Amino acid sequence: MNTYGYAAYSCDTSLAPFRFKRRALRREDVAMEVLYCGVCHSDLHTARNDWKWSVYPVVPGHEIIGRVTAVGEAVSAFKVGELVAVGCMVDSCLQCRYCTAGEEQMCVEKSVGTYNGVDRITGERTMGGYAKTMVVREEFCLHLPPSLDVTRAAPLLCAGITTYSPLRAWNVGAGTRLAVVGLGGLGHMAVKLGVAMGAHVTVISRSPDKEADALALGAHRVLVSGDVAAMEGAADAFDVILDTVPVAHSMDPYLPLLKADGTLVLVGQIGPMPGFSSLPVLGWRRRISGSHIGGIRETQEMLDFCAQHNVLPDVEMIRMDQINEAFERMERADVRYRFVIDMATLTDEQAPAAAQVQEPARALHVR
Amino acid sequence: MNTYGYAAYSCDTSLAPFRFKRRALRREDVAMEVLYCGVCHSDLHTARNDWKWSVYPVVPGHEIIGRVTAVGEAVSAFKVGELVAVGCMVDSCLQCRYCTAGEEQMCVEKSVGTYNGVDRITGERTMGGYAKTMVVREEFCLHLPPSLDVTRAAPLLCAGITTYSPLRAWNVGAGTRLAVVGLGGLGHMAVKLGVAMGAHVTVISRSPDKEADALALGAHRVLVSGDVAAMEGAADAFDVILDTVPVAHSMDPYLPLLKADGTLVLVGQIGPMPGFSSLPVLGWRRRISGSHIGGIRETQEMLDFCAQHNVLPDVEMIRMDQINEAFERMERADVRYRFVIDMATLTDEQAPAAAQVQEPARALHVR
Repeated sequence: MNTYGYAAYSCDTSLAPFRFKRRALRREDVAMEVLYCGVCHSDLHTARNDWKWSVYPVVPGHEIIGRVTAVGEAVSAFKVGELVAVGCMVDSCLQCRYCTAGEEQMCVEKSVGTYNGVDRITGERTMGGYAKTMVVREEFCLHLPPSLDVTRAAPLLCAGITTYSPLRAWNVGAGTRLAVVGLGGLGHMAVKLGVAMGAHVTVISRSPDKEADALALGAHRVLVSGDVAAMEGAADAFDVILDTVPVAHSMDPYLPLLKADGTLVLVGQIGPMPGFSSLPVLGWRRRISGSHIGGIRETQEMLDFCAQHNVLPDVEMIRMDQINEAFERMERADVRYRFVIDMATLTDEQAPAAAQVQEPARALHVR
Repeated sequence: MNTYGYAAYSCDTSLAPFRFKRRALRREDVAMEVLYCGVCHSDLHTARNDWKWSVYPVVPGHEIIGRVTAVGEAVSAFKVGELVAVGCMVDSCLQCRYCTAGEEQMCVEKSVGTYNGVDRITGERTMGGYAKTMVVREEFCLHLPPSLDVTRAAPLLCAGITTYSPLRAWNVGAGTRLAVVGLGGLGHMAVKLGVAMGAHVTVISRSPDKEADALALGAHRVLVSGDVAAMEGAADAFDVILDTVPVAHSMDPYLPLLKADGTLVLVGQIGPMPGFSSLPVLGWRRRISGSHIGGIRETQEMLDFCAQHNVLPDVEMIRMDQINEAFERMERADVRYRFVIDMATLTDEQAPAAAQVQEPARALHVR
């Protein structure tokens, strides 16, 4: 089906209108009109080719809220008119030990990204949610709980599950001493989710001026990482540290803050991390781990949890044509805490059709 | 009481005979004649001041087998004539949450090392097992199970517990896929203990010529880390990797070999570790951790386990006056797999008394 959206045409040009085709509805597919789409750092990284695997043109967007417009004949769980959501994956093998365990993001054949991925059947490039419509197989479509505010829910599909999944994996609950490093899109969700799970939540931030914001989000305490005395006083204090810093950074200031057997979970930086001292790790069996999004079953669980506990991201709504400005503001960390595009503002502008765009001769990098 | 042994007098001289005083027996103390003492890499590091906290003269040795010669009036668990053992610690606060949990090595007031430590009561320097006699408080004395070969048991007190404790902490048992990186004093114990616990054990080694040795120790398989195809074929294969490499080294070759939620446990290198890629960590919730010796209760459990399963280190017995040659051979990794000193070969040579030795004006570094 013909559709349109906004695409990155190259790593160094602004996003611009783009016409393209979604695949025809398969038996197991759900088609939707996109209502809202969150703006994730991954969108920006992909548009800029920071990870060196972007293939242009690419339509970003993997925090998608939509309304079902059609379903394939084999679809039973979704009905036309229903509010639904799509996150970071649109397919996987569904057969391997990870898929069958509900961990499709670990699929041994690799899950298919919502954008910049390759369709498992046709080999076409997948295109994301900065678009009027979306088509996804039923297994990767999520039910949006009716009580969730539809205008704010979109960032749950990436920022939400990325922080919910590790909090569950490391048994965060009543009484857990949780620290969250970094207060951006991921960090602010981690604070809200940690509080909703009953944890005592400390925000660790470089800048003392984030204290009021952190407390307003529900954090119980703020620790300024440059305050040597405060950091030393917090030694041996936390069960879990969720480290949302999205760039390479030293873990040395944080590891001694864990109790014995405590875990620092990396969720921000995917790639090189600098060296660290193993002394605080060996001496108290502290652990360094990481987590990346979450499986579909757990994503649904997260949406239901957020509906039940009224957990929603703080968002700033933008028009589709403000996306480039939003990217620039994200680069300066000037957003509290997530942009959401109101897709009703996307109109069928005079965009070039896909066939008119010269695809660059570029090696295909799939993670 | 007067005693004698071998001490390092400085970082750049050979170990030499040394006369010194052990403390008078306290109410809760056990005194013993030292029968055997294992030679650990930590002894060498301390003699050479590699960790910059050595205070000279220092008598190394924390893998001690002895026979009780006297007990203080409050001692009930040990009797004169009994075979006993002492490991890496001789005291701790015994009050904190770690001590009361049986993790004295994590004591919030820091445990007292068997040598190069500071007595909690007198402030005297502690002296290790390269000596005729030893005095230790009852809580840090261990029962040597009668069925353990007394000539080979000494290395269990450090190499044994250092590998046993993490194998227990990460639930290694029947069916566990365990990899051991490095085949030295620690590595060879890890293989034997892992096999005794029922795990499928793979040794990962840089040199293909260790294959026969590894299999002879009971390993089921050897993986040569330079064999790119073999390493790629072993991706996603292990529940636990015990990394015994005693120097800074990259973890990047090993992390992708873990299954999801698998753990790489550092037990060799205490100090700087180089950078690593977080990608295999985030993508599959892999974990990096570490472990350092173990608590007293668990050390006794380990001795009992080794007696029950007939697990003993491979040792080379030396005379006390061969210690410097043994150090040199350890530096070239020329030992399979642990030296043990037969302390019957230590005679009361014309050693200078402690008082005659000029203690260097050196800052005291306690870890």
